[in-house]
Amino acid sequence: MTSTESLTISELSACCTPIARAPMDATSAERLARSLKALADPARLRLLSIVASHEDAEACVCDLTEPLGLSQPTVSHHLKVLVDAGYLNRDKRGTWAYYSLTPNALDSVSGLLSNL
Amino acid sequence: MTSTESLTISELSACCTPIARAPMDATSAERLARSLKALADPARLRLLSIVASHEDAEACVCDLTEPLGLSQPTVSHHLKVLVDAGYLNRDKRGTWAYYSLTPNALDSVSGLLSNL
Repeated sequence: MTSTESLTISELSACCTPIARAPMDATSAERLARSLKALADPARLRLLSIVASHEDAEACVCDLTEPLGLSQPTVSHHLKVLVDAGYLNRDKRGTWAYYSLTPNALDSVSGLLSNL
Repeated sequence: MTSTESLTISELSACCTPIARAPMDATSAERLARSLKALADPARLRLLSIVASHEDAEACVCDLTEPLGLSQPTVSHHLKVLVDAGYLNRDKRGTWAYYSLTPNALDSVSGLLSNL
């Protein structure tokens, strides 16, 4: 499951040079735009941020609904977008699903945007 | 003109801590999402990348239409989004408008996403 889900991000770091280094080709731009679209939502940024700042960068879905003040189906939808884009991993253990930050996913995107 | 245009990015670096450091509040998440939305488009990423990799990180609008294979009004629209979001500055000199990268704009966004 995780292999296709995190494809976007791994493709990204494999394919692309930072945007300020050389003119970006159409395929790389499509890929980076797709990854950025998954991030470009306030609820998703807050979810990522809650997971990332949790102990061991992992959080139970039961800890993610209340802080955002959104319905559980809405939170589930946003979490699915983040998993599909490769930012989060989902692990079902017993009653609850646990979400953890995919190692290097945010840094891959950040590195492509950096102008340094 | 430039002062309001680059407000989004300067607010961003003033307001926000990196998303992995602490749970992001609603206002910071709204601001970062707005900045990411302006980036999350393949044509805009390519335009930024062409400007950034040009000599002195500045390019004439006359150099920006042909490489993308888009109509001039479409390119103008995308450039306006990038100027309004604070990624590019626009300078009219004679017949042509020149676009340059706003110093630190990409790095501000990149720094907020970085997990390091």
